[in-house]
Parts: sequence; structure tokens; C-alpha cells
Amino acid sequence: MSTLDSPYHHGDLRAALLDQADALLDAGGDGAVSLREVARAAGVSATAAYRHFADKESLLAALAARHYAEFGQILAGAPLAEMGRAYIRFALARPGRFRLMFGPLLAHAGAHPDLAAASGAAFAALSAAAPSPDDALRAWGLVHGLAHLLLDGAVRPPDVDALVARLIA
Amino acid sequence: MSTLDSPYHHGDLRAALLDQADALLDAGGDGAVSLREVARAAGVSATAAYRHFADKESLLAALAARHYAEFGQILAGAPLAEMGRAYIRFALARPGRFRLMFGPLLAHAGAHPDLAAASGAAFAALSAAAPSPDDALRAWGLVHGLAHLLLDGAVRPPDVDALVARLIA
Repeated sequence: MSTLDSPYHHGDLRAALLDQADALLDAGGDGAVSLREVARAAGVSATAAYRHFADKESLLAALAARHYAEFGQILAGAPLAEMGRAYIRFALARPGRFRLMFGPLLAHAGAHPDLAAASGAAFAALSAAAPSPDDALRAWGLVHGLAHLLLDGAVRPPDVDALVARLIA
Repeated sequence: MSTLDSPYHHGDLRAALLDQADALLDAGGDGAVSLREVARAAGVSATAAYRHFADKESLLAALAARHYAEFGQILAGAPLAEMGRAYIRFALARPGRFRLMFGPLLAHAGAHPDLAAASGAAFAALSAAAPSPDDALRAWGLVHGLAHLLLDGAVRPPDVDALVARLIA
């Protein structure tokens, strides 16, 4: 049933740790996530958590991979402009997830096969919808930049949805 | 000549504090800047520093205003594509300044007249070079997003300059 220091089945604990990491991420960004805190929130020892994730980066990579899989389903088969609007909606609704998935962690995706596969699938969906690799990168740059400018409040339009619909048509 | 707790003339101390803030910003981002640390680096008391800047945000706003003035000279009269390439070169060469000038602080520019004037002049130069306000915002979004993706290592081309020249033509 359970080990002495954990009320969870093995696979269930992994999912529970990711759920707790998600809650911390949504509340305070990736700076608020630590394996120790995630273990505490799930009601297990840090040792039990370390059986599933070698370090904080591995935990964040698994979390990002989970969200890329969900996000990939939003993108799949959508036209390029709809993908772009979905990207900005996602960033504004879930800034912690957005900054995690599309920030510095991506530079380390090579060390995390699940994240490499899940993010690769999302970028393949983007590439398939764009006329060329350069167009895909331009489209990504545009929505990534607008998402940051809107999130940071550098651009504060009276109607965000109307602006995004107009800029990404 | 000088007050008891400061070896500087009044205006010189302000400039010296900004110089020290700049060094801290370049080394560690705006999280590394504090009025206390800036005063220490300039060799004056925190009390002396507070005579020039009410709080950390005021110090950062004055620093950003100084950099906007320099940056505005780069932009003035340049064609839109050249502005865009200059923006990305600036971001990659000076990430701390870039994140300060074009990050969350901009949302508070209204409280800092120097920053509002200097950033307003830079955005006026951008607007003058773009066919419409929406085009200006699209151009800003594109270069802002590419700058972040390159800075974070999410996009790692073999030749950054060649990529930027191709994407912003």
C-alpha cells in the first residue's frame, strides 16, 4: 500500500508532487517552488520527493512537460493566427506557467527528455502552420514579446482582447 | 565644498550613485540594486543617498531615464528595421539595462516624470518610423520577444546576427 514515509502509491506521489509544484508556481512563480516545500505540501518527506526528482530543475522540467502536452493540444491543427492569440491568452491567464515553459528552462530541455519531446511537439505544430522556419520564429517572437509587454504592464490597452485580435489577424 | 557625511558636491553625488547602481545592475540585474548598497559603493551614508532618491524605484527610474536618453539617440531618425536590430543588439549586450528599461518599471513611468519623458521620446521615435500605431506595436512586440527568447537561450541560432538580420529585414 504505502511506504513508511509516504501515504502515496509510487506513481500517485509523482503526480501529487507535480500538483503541489503547480500550485506554488501559480501563486509565486518558479522562485516559489522548491522540492522541500513541494514535499511538505504533499505531506511527505523531502527524501521521498527526491526519489522522484533529482533536483528542482528536474521537477520544473517535468511540470513544464506536463503543461506543454496540454498546450500542444490547443495548438494542434489551429491556423497560425489562432495559435498566436491562444499563446497570449495562455500567458495572461497563467503567467507562472508561461514564464516557466517559455523561459530559461527551455535552454536546458536537452537534459530532460520528457520536456524535449513535449516542447518539440508544440514547436512542430507551430512550424507546420507557418510558411517557413523564419516565419515561425517571427510569429513566435511577436506573440512572445506582446505577452511580456502586456504581462509587465509596459503596454496597457483599454481592451486587451481587441488589441490582440487586431495585431494578430 | 562637501557635507560632513559626503565627499561629493550635490549634483556629483547623484551622478555617482547612478554610476554605482549601473554597475550593480550590469552585474546582477535590478534585484542586485539597493539604495543601501549603492550608497556603500559610492562611499557615502544611506542617509546621503536618500537625499537624492526617495526609494529604490526612484533610483531605478532615474537610471532607466538616463539609458533611455542614450538609447533614443540611437533610434532617432533610423528606419524601423534598423531600430529593431539596434533594440536586439542592445538587449543582448546589456541584459540588465534592457530588462530594467523595458520591463515592469515602465508600468510605473507615470510616477517618474524623467522616465516618462525619456521613454516617451523613444516611443515617439518608434511611432514616427512605423506606418501606424498598430505597426509600431507589432514591431516592438517582435523585437522584444526575439530579444527575450535569445537572452533566455530558448532560441540558440549558430549565428545570432545573421538570424536577426534575416528576421528583421
